[in-house]
Amino acid sequence: MTVPEKIAGFIRSQDHFFIASHINPEGDALGSTISLCLALKAMGKDVVAYNVDGVPYIYEFLPRRELIISELDGIDTNKYNLLLLDCNEPERASLENKGFKNSLVIDHHLTRKDFGDIRWIEPGAPATGVMVYHLIKALGVEITKEMAVNLYTAISIDTGTFRYDNTTSETLRVAAELIDRGADPAEIAIRLYESWRYNRFELLVRMLKTLEMIDLSCCRVAITHITLNMFRETGTTQADTENFSNFARMIEDVDVSVMLRETEPLKWKASMRGKGRVNLALVASRLGGGGHKNAAGFKAEGSLENVKSRLIEVLKKDC
Amino acid sequence: MTVPEKIAGFIRSQDHFFIASHINPEGDALGSTISLCLALKAMGKDVVAYNVDGVPYIYEFLPRRELIISELDGIDTNKYNLLLLDCNEPERASLENKGFKNSLVIDHHLTRKDFGDIRWIEPGAPATGVMVYHLIKALGVEITKEMAVNLYTAISIDTGTFRYDNTTSETLRVAAELIDRGADPAEIAIRLYESWRYNRFELLVRMLKTLEMIDLSCCRVAITHITLNMFRETGTTQADTENFSNFARMIEDVDVSVMLRETEPLKWKASMRGKGRVNLALVASRLGGGGHKNAAGFKAEGSLENVKSRLIEVLKKDC
Repeated sequence: MTVPEKIAGFIRSQDHFFIASHINPEGDALGSTISLCLALKAMGKDVVAYNVDGVPYIYEFLPRRELIISELDGIDTNKYNLLLLDCNEPERASLENKGFKNSLVIDHHLTRKDFGDIRWIEPGAPATGVMVYHLIKALGVEITKEMAVNLYTAISIDTGTFRYDNTTSETLRVAAELIDRGADPAEIAIRLYESWRYNRFELLVRMLKTLEMIDLSCCRVAITHITLNMFRETGTTQADTENFSNFARMIEDVDVSVMLRETEPLKWKASMRGKGRVNLALVASRLGGGGHKNAAGFKAEGSLENVKSRLIEVLKKDC
Repeated sequence: MTVPEKIAGFIRSQDHFFIASHINPEGDALGSTISLCLALKAMGKDVVAYNVDGVPYIYEFLPRRELIISELDGIDTNKYNLLLLDCNEPERASLENKGFKNSLVIDHHLTRKDFGDIRWIEPGAPATGVMVYHLIKALGVEITKEMAVNLYTAISIDTGTFRYDNTTSETLRVAAELIDRGADPAEIAIRLYESWRYNRFELLVRMLKTLEMIDLSCCRVAITHITLNMFRETGTTQADTENFSNFARMIEDVDVSVMLRETEPLKWKASMRGKGRVNLALVASRLGGGGHKNAAGFKAEGSLENVKSRLIEVLKKDC
């Protein structure tokens, strides 16, 4: 991967940066933000790292997570150059009403708008963290252990720790170097996959019991759901469902795994995960949502049965 | 990792090999056996690949799995040199009554006996597959796509696809080269983790519902179980429980996850998985079993409650 000189050169030439990423941040958004913040600080720059939602509890192990602020009181954004990571529209970072000196976008998602004075988009990169890794090296900054843990976490989350089809030999070589720089693969895996609160585990078991298999002529769909009542009874929150949509994928011949969770009475968020056969980005866009081919989502209102029927109708068309 | 010349030289000097691995083979045993068999055949040697239990259905995706035979009728083992992989006692491969010309051991498990004319033991290797990878290269054989898929599977299984604490930067670099040689990481992950028969999934959900958390003063233990009745009602077999013992590990503060499965009325097999705090090899050995520090097992007879109590007693002593 080659870092565009217009990105590296611009960063070298400027002093004030405001790094931000998308709402509901996961490991790639957070790890990319923190590691780039550390690298720019190492270059002596003035850096603000921001996320409107802060750092969710499952990422509390990330070193230097306290660098991320979620309040902008008293900060005049106009003096900063925005570095928007892992998304490419200011609305996704809840920054649509803020002004910046210049705006740069660094993202591995295909873009719908062309926001940004300088844009670096690599749809082939498995994670924004891989791009940030190469950027930090291009800037001549040594990768510290703190950066390495953040970047390894970023790459782990977006590749399912090297299990998704965005994993390449290059991904593993970058990860290998991050281990040499101090990232501990087992420690990070325990934090990501084996540090569930007990009631989160209870919620998972209850969700798995709702599994419904639907055979369409073109594909096999596994649907699970979580009602507000299930959250209440287990003492869990929406954030506890991170990664839940992947579980039903484990069944053979399941092409699409869908998890529906109730966010308010009769309001649902759907997370869909695929194995390559169905273009879920397209399915989601027809239902007002978005995402990648194998990982997409949408919001819907109505009864559970009604939401399911609408989804099935769209899936029948697109698969 | 350096391949001992006494191993590589011996293999170069001989023509007839009998490659075998342990009973109840998993990905490391099978992938190591098949890939080494292919490499020796590429050198023009006469090779028999053997496993008494054959290839379980979840490994039916391994290329050239048909090379592994499970019957020895008409084969005179005395003319062959034994290459015993991923175990180090002939009993573990059900070969204790067979004679061989010479016997070589290639294993990453600590050994209890000193069986073998030539022994290559690397307790630091995450998988026997990593040793076989280096051996094939030392023999000057080019790693084909078929070998790469087998070796990548071997390494994946024994490292939890790079999540266990035996994962090093070297492991990822070997895996990266195997991807360059044709192994598809996502395809292999789907086969290993996302190709469950539906009734296997049902069995998992039923097992998870049996979860019991036990707080000892020294460690936190999660115990699940599967009775013969649960196998019967879901139409599953013992082989379907592969990897089940890992699930309860996902709960934070769980130091030891134990799965007890009934193999015959009132006869149990226990699989234990840890996160580094308790030496499970020691716990298992006190109960007549064996294994590694973070993955060990034993057999027991009696009622479920009785087996649990005995285990708890030993855990109290050793943690």
